[in-house]
Amino acid sequence: MPTPDTQHALRRRNLSRVLRAVAEAGTVSRAGVAARIGLTRAGVAPLVDELLRAGLLVEAGRAAPSGRGRPGSGLTVSDRGPAGIGAEIGVDHLAVCAVDLRGTVRARLATTAANRHSEPGPVLRRLSALLAEVTAAIAAEGLRPAGLTVAVPGLVARGSTTVVHAPNLGWRAADLAPGLTAALTPAPGTAAAHAAPVPLTVDNEANLGALAELHLGGADGCAPPSDFVHVSAETGIGAALVVDGQLLRGARGFAGELGHVPVYPDGRPCGCGGRGCLEQYAGERAVLRAGGLTPEQAAAAHPGPGARTALLARRAADGDAATIGALRAAGAALGIALAGAVNLLDPRAVVLGGALAGLAPWVLPSLERELALRTAVAPAPARPGGCLVTVSQLGADGPLLGAAYAALRTVLEDPVSTGTPAHSPQL
Amino acid sequence: MPTPDTQHALRRRNLSRVLRAVAEAGTVSRAGVAARIGLTRAGVAPLVDELLRAGLLVEAGRAAPSGRGRPGSGLTVSDRGPAGIGAEIGVDHLAVCAVDLRGTVRARLATTAANRHSEPGPVLRRLSALLAEVTAAIAAEGLRPAGLTVAVPGLVARGSTTVVHAPNLGWRAADLAPGLTAALTPAPGTAAAHAAPVPLTVDNEANLGALAELHLGGADGCAPPSDFVHVSAETGIGAALVVDGQLLRGARGFAGELGHVPVYPDGRPCGCGGRGCLEQYAGERAVLRAGGLTPEQAAAAHPGPGARTALLARRAADGDAATIGALRAAGAALGIALAGAVNLLDPRAVVLGGALAGLAPWVLPSLERELALRTAVAPAPARPGGCLVTVSQLGADGPLLGAAYAALRTVLEDPVSTGTPAHSPQL
Repeated sequence: MPTPDTQHALRRRNLSRVLRAVAEAGTVSRAGVAARIGLTRAGVAPLVDELLRAGLLVEAGRAAPSGRGRPGSGLTVSDRGPAGIGAEIGVDHLAVCAVDLRGTVRARLATTAANRHSEPGPVLRRLSALLAEVTAAIAAEGLRPAGLTVAVPGLVARGSTTVVHAPNLGWRAADLAPGLTAALTPAPGTAAAHAAPVPLTVDNEANLGALAELHLGGADGCAPPSDFVHVSAETGIGAALVVDGQLLRGARGFAGELGHVPVYPDGRPCGCGGRGCLEQYAGERAVLRAGGLTPEQAAAAHPGPGARTALLARRAADGDAATIGALRAAGAALGIALAGAVNLLDPRAVVLGGALAGLAPWVLPSLERELALRTAVAPAPARPGGCLVTVSQLGADGPLLGAAYAALRTVLEDPVSTGTPAHSPQL
Repeated sequence: MPTPDTQHALRRRNLSRVLRAVAEAGTVSRAGVAARIGLTRAGVAPLVDELLRAGLLVEAGRAAPSGRGRPGSGLTVSDRGPAGIGAEIGVDHLAVCAVDLRGTVRARLATTAANRHSEPGPVLRRLSALLAEVTAAIAAEGLRPAGLTVAVPGLVARGSTTVVHAPNLGWRAADLAPGLTAALTPAPGTAAAHAAPVPLTVDNEANLGALAELHLGGADGCAPPSDFVHVSAETGIGAALVVDGQLLRGARGFAGELGHVPVYPDGRPCGCGGRGCLEQYAGERAVLRAGGLTPEQAAAAHPGPGARTALLARRAADGDAATIGALRAAGAALGIALAGAVNLLDPRAVVLGGALAGLAPWVLPSLERELALRTAVAPAPARPGGCLVTVSQLGADGPLLGAAYAALRTVLEDPVSTGTPAHSPQL
């Protein structure tokens, strides 16, 4: 059956376009908004009024005169109102942040946490405590949570937005919704007690890192391309595939398992049951082992999120030959796996994110050498921007920021929604 | 700027939906068409009239009574009118076919041709002669070419619909348009002399094979999935990636280079400059060599399109150990490369097409074993249909049929177009 383009849907889309236009512009006149989205000023005026009434836009004095027409009063996105809450469950850390409609991080908390082989219950209780702290902090600034998205180092099946399969945590089919419900329910007796529960979505960390790259990034000075492979590594190695500006999720939602692409097919056995998977050569544990360190030594020496990456980077910077060799071998293995991905997908760029961003100086040369050697079949046209392999400027923060952005996206797409579903659809 | 949904575009879309609905149904009443596409009978009637006037639909007596409403007179797609012309340039063969709006092959010609390292000029002259024959044959039956799509074993850059880069032919940046213009221009003095030139598109054979699978296929008894990797092999090995029913072409149009995915990274040097590419283990030349035959021996023993595949299949069926071993090794290499593709893309199925379809009995067991071993990281849900690896029923004919379908798609999408661009956009 055809879905008629109702007035309601049209209005919602136009409200979204106005809100996004102002968010991108910073401060802009009504005429400027109209020019940006190709509507008339008369068409834009009632949309702006509705967004002002909803508290999503505010008047910001007079905007700088635009090229043509007389200057209107300036509009800007409110720094109060909805905030996207992003959370991250890492193998050894937890983090929560809140981002407002302007894209500004308004609160951020992170802590070490031994999540590997911990049951979901205790992990979610600690995460809930962080969520309560962040929510209280932003409430004091007039912000309310519009949604919560949790980044996990695992797989989330398509259509199931809260159930996680995360071998590196030891979680199988773990539903995070029950454990996070308390943190999402407004406390009785507060002003928000009668508000709708905050929508919850859980997604793969690499997917959210790619989303951050796409909407908040700008890797290495290049304009963020709309076709790229985003690689992120912590304990595991994941990739997100962005095609024409959209995440490619796969039929079941499990696309991007770069860590289990065969690199040396007769090589080391992998926990997945295969052999010679990329993770066995470029995963953190493999690199630490090749560099002469056990994970326990590394963790003991430098507790805290990103500690092992920082340790590897410092040892490499200090000229430690074993570490440099381990990172070089990891880069070569990444280059081989990415050569497969590039031959298959023909992306505009490969973006190194997560922990890899901090190790780029030692990983990149061998990675780029293998990639260039093994992707030469296609004719080489001038690449606009010339940036096949780029390094994320967001680094290890990408998945957390991407999660907050994802949580805010329902507001950007449906700014003055009356009812919100308890669990938002996957983005 | 927003593109308003004009009445014209809406009418075109509805005409397309009516034509497709009738083509899918075979014979159907007006009420049946209305029910299929969710419009009222009153809305469908003028669309049907326009398609009848254009000669695309014909009345076919009375249709079988549908469940509700009284039976209307039956409609069917005309077996005259437009035909899609598909052509294929292989390394050692040429083929042309014509397919009508009902999906019936109305004419087909194929011939051996030593195209490897031949300049495009002579190849296109032979192809033009075949095209003239096919065009004359269908003209006698009241059909006219609606478009020509040429399948090539090479890369066609996005946005450049007639320029081919085909290392296996020895062609670099070869523009096929000039050499095919004569075949596409209606002869002076004929009834068609004043008709618009037939639009020409050139596309990768694996892409067109996948298109055939998607619209004409039905691999192995399973419903054609909308997310699959289609593998085709002749001299080279190519893949086409179908995601949500759409071809994933890549940023430059070069996606699907499965043949150059590294399988044994320290292995055999490849013509592309890499090492251990899949093509060096599962390409036809590698399999013939491993089976103890030179390509010349194979060609001499069995001339004609598909000869080498048929020879390999017969030797394997006869129990020749070297051939069986070579095909088993090819299957293992395919399984390793496809494990990478499946880990990255999470498709619903892998479809073996082209020459591989005929070799499936000897290639599949080792292929499936490697694939299963190396894609076990994702949780295993019940797969609807349970058909991860399927064999194309179209076999080596897939690219040619897909080309004819692609040539017809402009008619299906814009049935009563007034003006046709000389070169149609890539599909």
